Parts: sequence; C-alpha cells; structure tokens
Amino acid sequence: MATISTYNYTIQPQDVDFSLRASASSLISYMLNVAGTDAHLKGFGVDALQGQSFTWVLSRLAVEIYHQPKQYEDIDIDTWVNDFNRLSSTRNFRMRSVDGVAAIGFSQWCMLNMETRQVVDMNLLKDVYERAMVDEPSPISAPARLREIEPTTTYSRPVRYSDIDFNRHVNTLRYIDIIFDNVPLELIEKNNGMRLDINFIAEARYGDTLTIGSLAEQNVWKFDISAEGKRLCSARLEFK
Amino acid sequence: MATISTYNYTIQPQDVDFSLRASASSLISYMLNVAGTDAHLKGFGVDALQGQSFTWVLSRLAVEIYHQPKQYEDIDIDTWVNDFNRLSSTRNFRMRSVDGVAAIGFSQWCMLNMETRQVVDMNLLKDVYERAMVDEPSPISAPARLREIEPTTTYSRPVRYSDIDFNRHVNTLRYIDIIFDNVPLELIEKNNGMRLDINFIAEARYGDTLTIGSLAEQNVWKFDISAEGKRLCSARLEFK
Repeated sequence: MATISTYNYTIQPQDVDFSLRASASSLISYMLNVAGTDAHLKGFGVDALQGQSFTWVLSRLAVEIYHQPKQYEDIDIDTWVNDFNRLSSTRNFRMRSVDGVAAIGFSQWCMLNMETRQVVDMNLLKDVYERAMVDEPSPISAPARLREIEPTTTYSRPVRYSDIDFNRHVNTLRYIDIIFDNVPLELIEKNNGMRLDINFIAEARYGDTLTIGSLAEQNVWKFDISAEGKRLCSARLEFK
Repeated sequence: MATISTYNYTIQPQDVDFSLRASASSLISYMLNVAGTDAHLKGFGVDALQGQSFTWVLSRLAVEIYHQPKQYEDIDIDTWVNDFNRLSSTRNFRMRSVDGVAAIGFSQWCMLNMETRQVVDMNLLKDVYERAMVDEPSPISAPARLREIEPTTTYSRPVRYSDIDFNRHVNTLRYIDIIFDNVPLELIEKNNGMRLDINFIAEARYGDTLTIGSLAEQNVWKFDISAEGKRLCSARLEFK
C-alpha cells in the first residue's frame, strides 16, 4: 500500500484563456500530466512499458471543475490509484488552489499493445500495481457510460500533425478542446461549476477525417466524435 | 545592465510528438513561456502591464532548431533582452539539452494598448528596461521581413475558443501548429535542422474565419494566414 502523492505547479500564461483563468482543457492537461509523471516515478510509466511495445490509453474520464485558478497561481494536485482489474485501473485527482478544491477527477486506463492495438491483461503489472495502490476512495462518481446520440449539428475536419501524440493517435486533450470549442463562450465565461464525462472508444490516426456531432439539452451538451463512420469518443458536459 | 537568466524544464509527455521528441511547437512554447516568466520576474510582465490596459504582443520571431530533446530530458533555456527602441524590444533564447544547443531564438515584441489596439511607445518602460538589458549579441540573425505569397494551396477554418489567449486573439502557438500541420510528416520526422521565420501583422479574433495559404519551393515552405481578406501572419520554414 502507498500514500497519496502530491505534485505542485504554477498556472502558466499558456494555460489561461481570455478570462486569465486556466482553461478546463489545461486543468485536465495538468491531471493527465500528473498521471504520466506519477506512473513514471512509480515504475509503470509509458517509458517502462515501451520496452514491451505497451502503452497506457485513457478509456474513461470524469472531471468536476469548481473554479479555474488564475495565471501564476500555485496548484497542488493529489493523485492516487485505488483500483485495478484485468482490464483497467483507476487513478484519481484532487486539484487544490488558494481558494480550496478547484477540480476533482476519476480516470480509467487500460494497457494497449502498440503492435496488435489490443488491450493487455493488467495482471502483468500486478506486483508493481499492488505496491502503488492507495486505500482512499475516489473523490467523485465513476465516469458515466455514454450512449450514442442523434446530433443536431455536425461538421468534419482532418486529423493533423498537432492532433497526434506519442501513441500516433489523436491526443485526449484535442477531443477536450473540440468539446469546449463547440459550447457557447458565455457558458465558459460564467462557469459556476461543470462536470465532464468522456468515453474513449476507438483511436483516430493521422490522415483520418473527424466528424463532430453535438446536441444541446438545456445546460447539458452531448458529443459524439467519429471517423470514417466509427465512433471514437462520446462526451457529456453539464454546466451547473 | 543585467546578466543572462536561465530557466530549467523537463520535457513532458504532452510536449512530444509521435517520435517521442519535443515538437517544434512545444520548444517554441517553452521559449515564449520563458519570455513571459522572465518579464514577470523583472517587473514588466503582462500582469504588471494589465494595470494600464497594456499587453505584450509578439511581432516577429526567428527560431532555429537543431535537435528536439526527448521526453523527460532536462533542458536549460537562457534568455536575455539586448535591444529596445520606441516600437519594439528584442529577447533572445538559447535552449540547451544534454546533447548541446537544441534551439536558438530571436523574438521582437511590441506593447499594445488593449483598449485602442494601438502600439504603445516603449519609452514608458525605459527605466525598468535599461536595468534588464544584457550586453550579449543575439545568437541568430533577426527574423526576416516576409512578403505576401501567391499560395498554391488554401483552406479555411473558423477561430475557436481553444485558439484564443488572454489577449482575446489567436495565440501565437496556434499559428505555429497550423504551419507544421501543413508540412509533410516525413520532413518533421527526418528533421536535420530547420529555421522558422514568422511575422505577425494583425490579430484574429473569436468568430473570424482563418484562410491558410501555402506554397512549397524545394525545402522551403511559405505561409500566409489571413482573415476576412486581411493578412494576419506570414511564415517561412526551411528544412536543412
């Protein structure tokens, strides 16, 4: 058993949006960065896995954002792994600023064989994982399982170099940018708390064309992102 | 007179591209981040200027990239201001990794009144600037003055939330992403050194439509990015 690890950052100018507060996408980027760094320091980062052609892939994410820290504010991010099974592991996040808890998160990861693109049995990492587990519940409910929507608005765009990451597929943060890019600016500006649930279903590669479908129901925005007719990612964004 | 300041970073997972090396855009992001942090620490950052409704705007940039550091590699970035006049100031960069100098840069900045969108006389900051000046030449030649091109390829896309920064205009790094997104992936993959010159002419705002025009002449790629018929940015990218 391990204890919660905490990482400290300062909100940088490139993290803030027009309101001089960290964008939701940059807060999620900090969480995912902490996930990478913590796994790396504990011996099960992508760098350790790449020797075996394995990599980490985010399968589901839920994030609640209460307030967005300002430029040059210090943030502490607590992170801990508290569950794993054959197919996925759960990593949690709690981001704190001078104004209290800014955001909390629940992420589910699976291990992918980069050559076969198949999920790898997580029991391979059982020993290292058991040492890393923390006896602390998740701060929020698990990411919702999202069903396909009937979008009222759709548009398409190609996958480009800046969309792809070390896994050679479209990076998680690009989907999150796409989601917030398709919500009215006023909702982002007047944020009084929001919850994002996102399911990653399949990968998009360089050269694919993304189709973004969306649907708004009062304060809830739903998205399906697909490529060549295959659903890649579904998301649900609720503004309080 | 001051001395060269050095900032240390570690290349993060979100900085690397499919080759597991820091992308050109993330290296430039580190340089611009250093510019913001160094100005902030020396008392002339955007935060100090915002009290007077002024902000820093990048007008020209030249960057030479010799090699792209790998994920988790440490980098040191030296930075110094060595010139300023009524209209602009010059800030230089030298990025070093374990393999030697990775990249060098020359940036020209002007001060903008956010209300009138007019350039402000830099002599307003004469005292603070004179204390910050360093007696050290720029590591590379000044950014070229780029003329309008006759593009052979063009496409358009809207300005979205994730494109805009605290100045409420399209962020510099977005233009740099656009440039690299429109160059063949093989050239980025086989990089043996490159030089990017970029001129920022006008601002694009939320709701504008960007038109990206490009032209390739052997190992040189030229770009004009415009909105509503007005040229915003021109760039020249040369692969060695």
